[in-house]
Amino acid sequence: MAGYTHLYIPGPTNIPERVRMAMNVSMQDMRAPDFPDLTKPLFAKVAKVFRNSTGRVFLYPSSGTGAWEAAIQNTLSPGDRVLMSRFGQFSHLWVDMAQRLGLEVDVVDCEWGEGVPVETYAERLRADRGHRIKAVFATHNETATGVSSDVAAVRRALDEAGHPALLMVDGVSAVGSIPFDQDAWRVDCCVSGSQKGFMLPAGLGILSVSAKALEASRTAGYPRTYFAFADQIAGNDNGYFPYTPATQLLRGLDVSCDMLLEEGLEAVWGRHARLAGGVRQAVQAWGLRLCAKEPRWQSDTVSAIVVPEGVDATRVIRRAYEAYNTSLGSGLSKVAGKVFRIGHLGWLNEGMVCTALSVAEMAMIDCGIALRPGSGVGAAISHFSSTSPAVVAKAA
Amino acid sequence: MAGYTHLYIPGPTNIPERVRMAMNVSMQDMRAPDFPDLTKPLFAKVAKVFRNSTGRVFLYPSSGTGAWEAAIQNTLSPGDRVLMSRFGQFSHLWVDMAQRLGLEVDVVDCEWGEGVPVETYAERLRADRGHRIKAVFATHNETATGVSSDVAAVRRALDEAGHPALLMVDGVSAVGSIPFDQDAWRVDCCVSGSQKGFMLPAGLGILSVSAKALEASRTAGYPRTYFAFADQIAGNDNGYFPYTPATQLLRGLDVSCDMLLEEGLEAVWGRHARLAGGVRQAVQAWGLRLCAKEPRWQSDTVSAIVVPEGVDATRVIRRAYEAYNTSLGSGLSKVAGKVFRIGHLGWLNEGMVCTALSVAEMAMIDCGIALRPGSGVGAAISHFSSTSPAVVAKAA
Amino acid sequence: MAGYTHLYIPGPTNIPERVRMAMNVSMQDMRAPDFPDLTKPLFAKVAKVFRNSTGRVFLYPSSGTGAWEAAIQNTLSPGDRVLMSRFGQFSHLWVDMAQRLGLEVDVVDCEWGEGVPVETYAERLRADRGHRIKAVFATHNETATGVSSDVAAVRRALDEAGHPALLMVDGVSAVGSIPFDQDAWRVDCCVSGSQKGFMLPAGLGILSVSAKALEASRTAGYPRTYFAFADQIAGNDNGYFPYTPATQLLRGLDVSCDMLLEEGLEAVWGRHARLAGGVRQAVQAWGLRLCAKEPRWQSDTVSAIVVPEGVDATRVIRRAYEAYNTSLGSGLSKVAGKVFRIGHLGWLNEGMVCTALSVAEMAMIDCGIALRPGSGVGAAISHFSSTSPAVVAKAA
Amino acid sequence: MAGYTHLYIPGPTNIPERVRMAMNVSMQDMRAPDFPDLTKPLFAKVAKVFRNSTGRVFLYPSSGTGAWEAAIQNTLSPGDRVLMSRFGQFSHLWVDMAQRLGLEVDVVDCEWGEGVPVETYAERLRADRGHRIKAVFATHNETATGVSSDVAAVRRALDEAGHPALLMVDGVSAVGSIPFDQDAWRVDCCVSGSQKGFMLPAGLGILSVSAKALEASRTAGYPRTYFAFADQIAGNDNGYFPYTPATQLLRGLDVSCDMLLEEGLEAVWGRHARLAGGVRQAVQAWGLRLCAKEPRWQSDTVSAIVVPEGVDATRVIRRAYEAYNTSLGSGLSKVAGKVFRIGHLGWLNEGMVCTALSVAEMAMIDCGIALRPGSGVGAAISHFSSTSPAVVAKAA
Repeated sequence: MAGYTHLYIPGPTNIPERVRMAMNVSMQDMRAPDFPDLTKPLFAKVAKVFRNSTGRVFLYPSSGTGAWEAAIQNTLSPGDRVLMSRFGQFSHLWVDMAQRLGLEVDVVDCEWGEGVPVETYAERLRADRGHRIKAVFATHNETATGVSSDVAAVRRALDEAGHPALLMVDGVSAVGSIPFDQDAWRVDCCVSGSQKGFMLPAGLGILSVSAKALEASRTAGYPRTYFAFADQIAGNDNGYFPYTPATQLLRGLDVSCDMLLEEGLEAVWGRHARLAGGVRQAVQAWGLRLCAKEPRWQSDTVSAIVVPEGVDATRVIRRAYEAYNTSLGSGLSKVAGKVFRIGHLGWLNEGMVCTALSVAEMAMIDCGIALRPGSGVGAAISHFSSTSPAVVAKAA
Repeated sequence: MAGYTHLYIPGPTNIPERVRMAMNVSMQDMRAPDFPDLTKPLFAKVAKVFRNSTGRVFLYPSSGTGAWEAAIQNTLSPGDRVLMSRFGQFSHLWVDMAQRLGLEVDVVDCEWGEGVPVETYAERLRADRGHRIKAVFATHNETATGVSSDVAAVRRALDEAGHPALLMVDGVSAVGSIPFDQDAWRVDCCVSGSQKGFMLPAGLGILSVSAKALEASRTAGYPRTYFAFADQIAGNDNGYFPYTPATQLLRGLDVSCDMLLEEGLEAVWGRHARLAGGVRQAVQAWGLRLCAKEPRWQSDTVSAIVVPEGVDATRVIRRAYEAYNTSLGSGLSKVAGKVFRIGHLGWLNEGMVCTALSVAEMAMIDCGIALRPGSGVGAAISHFSSTSPAVVAKAA
Repeated sequence: MAGYTHLYIPGPTNIPERVRMAMNVSMQDMRAPDFPDLTKPLFAKVAKVFRNSTGRVFLYPSSGTGAWEAAIQNTLSPGDRVLMSRFGQFSHLWVDMAQRLGLEVDVVDCEWGEGVPVETYAERLRADRGHRIKAVFATHNETATGVSSDVAAVRRALDEAGHPALLMVDGVSAVGSIPFDQDAWRVDCCVSGSQKGFMLPAGLGILSVSAKALEASRTAGYPRTYFAFADQIAGNDNGYFPYTPATQLLRGLDVSCDMLLEEGLEAVWGRHARLAGGVRQAVQAWGLRLCAKEPRWQSDTVSAIVVPEGVDATRVIRRAYEAYNTSLGSGLSKVAGKVFRIGHLGWLNEGMVCTALSVAEMAMIDCGIALRPGSGVGAAISHFSSTSPAVVAKAA
Repeated sequence: MAGYTHLYIPGPTNIPERVRMAMNVSMQDMRAPDFPDLTKPLFAKVAKVFRNSTGRVFLYPSSGTGAWEAAIQNTLSPGDRVLMSRFGQFSHLWVDMAQRLGLEVDVVDCEWGEGVPVETYAERLRADRGHRIKAVFATHNETATGVSSDVAAVRRALDEAGHPALLMVDGVSAVGSIPFDQDAWRVDCCVSGSQKGFMLPAGLGILSVSAKALEASRTAGYPRTYFAFADQIAGNDNGYFPYTPATQLLRGLDVSCDMLLEEGLEAVWGRHARLAGGVRQAVQAWGLRLCAKEPRWQSDTVSAIVVPEGVDATRVIRRAYEAYNTSLGSGLSKVAGKVFRIGHLGWLNEGMVCTALSVAEMAMIDCGIALRPGSGVGAAISHFSSTSPAVVAKAA
């Protein structure tokens, strides 16, 4: 089909030209004497993106799911009690992993569309006088429902209860896109992957850990080698890896971190907030609603848009793909057929958001959803024009 | 700046991934025994795109301007009388070249926004009983004003006058995008370049010539070597070139011709017509007008949009570039500051046109042009949705 | 430094242009309806490279080390007794992993330079009347010492003892380069990675399993999710994955399998044998010896070359890297400083082997090793010239 | 065929990874306000490579042949008398062009294998009291025979005769590889192309001109537009071009000039001399001779090697191509079948030269030429090892 394939799923995201160039290299020797010239500064840059100044980061050849497993294997032991919540497909899968890995999971089930139930967490932590709970898990951004949670509040709940549990965060679709501060929030393990805010192809599991998590790894009871912190540390400290790293992705990561840090994390977060604002204006103009139940939970990286009763959202997505060469995100599990998702994270600008909204309009119209053509994208255009950081005068 | 740079100038156009891949190769030997395995089928494919079944095509390392010069040098002689018309920057430049190369140019000046004055041509040809006019020139698509002309009608004028002059066509922003039929219209030289409908970087001048033009080259009086047909033919007949060719571009051209022929020329033309229709609906919804004075002259590859009195179109273009990472085409010469242009040719789809229109709206609003946000892109969305060739049922 | 960086380590290997092109694509949706058009044929192609017609293959975003762990986690249980041998750094690491994962490892230690001790294995299996040994491990090609082992003989030992243990093979630097036949040898788990014979960047752990291994996974006792067969199968059967796959590498793998199958596995193996022959002729001409103690153990994918007493092989490697832009493989662990390695696997031809040998000569001379310049590469030239499959007459 | 295609023709040369990356970009707007940020520094860098501090450079979308024509068209007039010499295919073609463009060419024919006949030039210039000769032409490096000429001596001949003729130099396979100094030698037009020392794909004709040549262009009598200096100057002065430039190549040129200037021109020239020395040692060890008749004429960028009587050099070249995936240069015109050429210019190092020599040995042996395997490459290895600029101690 002619023209670009428009990719507006919540990851993998669009790869910047500069990153793509950096990765299109011939292979190199991962044991070369100058290999640490690449890796040592890289570890530091990645840690900066997490605002992790006291712990360290691990770069696994894996997906984000592998980094989930790495976090659990290295800091906990089979039978440990943990506190988790479930309100979307990805928080569900993390719970499922924890259970299958033999943790005793205290699950708080919430409606899909809500976020981490901080109040309930606070209660359970206060009630856990014996500190049986070894770790508290929070999905920072539930990609399936477009819901962001308040991680800082989870930290406050822990502190207020004087509870020593580890704080484990799934930041896969959050880090590098929306505010995250590992130092300030004292997050012990933050899981991410290469294919979201880091703007790379999938293939790297990125795990940023605190000094406390490193300490915990000394007594963690899971058998492990592939994801073992100790093996990574032994190699990484010299700029190498315990097994062949995905060098191509490391080259790309080096450039994508440069791009994030050059733009400035606050500026990157601001850009995501502003672009997400345009999407939300469009949804309102269409007369539709988001899966996220309250404004405080609306994610700045992905919007799950509820289609009207009687319409199958799967048809809208298929239509966008087949007729307009555009990938929108599908509804997963409980919300399958009820929502379609627009990923608005990573290497993104106003024109790209308008593309996604325009195609969504065409696909919805084609599927019989009543809406005024241009209403949604027009609302976004208004939003972008009125909030543009560039000074109009400059164009004069 | 984050996100794609959106390129909506009327060439260079967006390069398909498949073409870009084909060009990103290491260098190869242009005298290798298997080099003709690339070039011989390539000459045939390019000729098919021109619908030239009786002459041949030349592939010069040059721009389209070089192919203009090649056409003149090889078929005419200094002092020859030729009939040309001028109604935009590119037809103007071709006239200028002809004059500077020492032709005696009979120029018909038209208003910018009109096309080739077929009636006047017909008169001049009928009046030229002595057949002093050696060639008639037609700019098929005037890129500066977004005007397409009726080349078939020029052929009819020649035939009706029983006039033997050569028919020279500038098809740079036409071939591979809008209907062109060298056989049917008996065009003698059709000039094109790599960076428009052929969807490649600039760097190849493509000249498709008739048997009659080849015959004319035997007696043409210009001193020439670089662009000389005879040198090219001697090499090309064996699959080689008289000097080092731009092999990388030849590799890309091979793929882009495959893409055009796989989609089918009629389908490619239809796609351009439909996408251009969306742009014109947008212009009407904005309450603006095109530089092209009449519907019959509206180009399906580029639209020159007249901004309201008192607004400097240059500001709109600068604003799109600086605030929204988007290149729109500027007004050239007589229409500088009065129009901005949207190129809608090459590797293009609905989402991309909506991107261009959305950014144009934002930039115009930012520059104080009164228009309802979403009005233009909404009109295009309606147009695309109602004319989509893909069956909605398929998405069911 | 000017000119190509010459890469002659035993993986990552040189990436074919065609593969590199296929990977340099923008991102795509791994949940798109047509994604299985890529993956379903791909699983079949990969299985063909392993000659696995009855089981299935798994493609993990991981290194080969991850696939080692996947093989163990999915088919065995903590405390299971296994038979392994150790004669180089990679067989050592696999033993280490097995021990750390809690297996009861019956290790046969051999001298570095020898291969799998088939006789000892046969004895132990015959002696194990109670079939306490659940799996027998064989490192097909020990990359650290350049030693290939006889996997078919291990299968015979199992059969002759009537032993039901699983047969686990590390084929990381073997599959796709030297003869391997999973069907004929009834290998239960064969581990490989993307960056060796598959000619890709590192990042994919490739595991090919038999029906018997799949059966074993039903009762295997390790907690697991990331590498769990069941999760993969549930996704793969529909052409999808349980988490975001490394799509870029899958695209490349698709092309590299095509290349292997187009050339023909026997032809690929023959090419490796012939090229390795040239390296061995060179070593002999230099008056040096290989780490592999006997001809039957000499690997066709990597040669570990023992430097004369008193010379530090590390200096040779550093010299090649710093003065001649060439990566040779270093000696690991027990043979550090004693050997340097030339990787001769993957996308390779005669000229490339001569490059590696020429640079090795220069680096050795520079480090004071006495040898006649050109002696080694000359021996390889003789070998290649006299064994060239292309008929000399063809050039006439 | 497996493995790299080895390219050792005297252009196009191997493209550095860094250059290739820089060129693999999506298209951009050549009229964008920030386009001059690329072009203005680029003109300055290119001029530095020519050591042209007083004139300017032109970058044409063309081959080097186009730049030959540009030099003539812009500085001379039909009927002008010029002094040229002919001693190889490329000096022959330049003479042919001059004649066909209507110059009155005073040709000095030399044997192929000799260079510019400075003594004869000196005589003719002294004899030309009336200064009828308007320009003196010198082919700095005759690519067909591997002969370099003494351009500085031609300048001295002009000066000693007090002759005002323009000095025109073909530096296509010289500039950026062997010493060239436009300022010191007061060269008026130096022609080059992108695909030799500039390490790019073919497609740019590069012409570096003196202030005197610019002055001459005011009165030059050729009709011209495509190559006209005036049009280029009008655009270039603002950072733009009179027609669509080959932006992709300009991006690559920017990087390749950076690479040349970072390495340092003297270092680049020294590297070429040293690598060429290795090739000449090999030729001597083979018992063969160069086409270049005397050491002072031996080119450091290309060697034309004479095969023994009775052997057809074409067979050697075909054999290298078909059996060993290697492109060597063929003998052109008078020396067809008598020589094969090794291009040793551009992005090159010791390992690459050894590859070329090894393959040449195999191909010659296969074609029945008697030589000791390894003799040539061994001689080169000795040469490289004994002249290596990197200190052996460093590797210690």
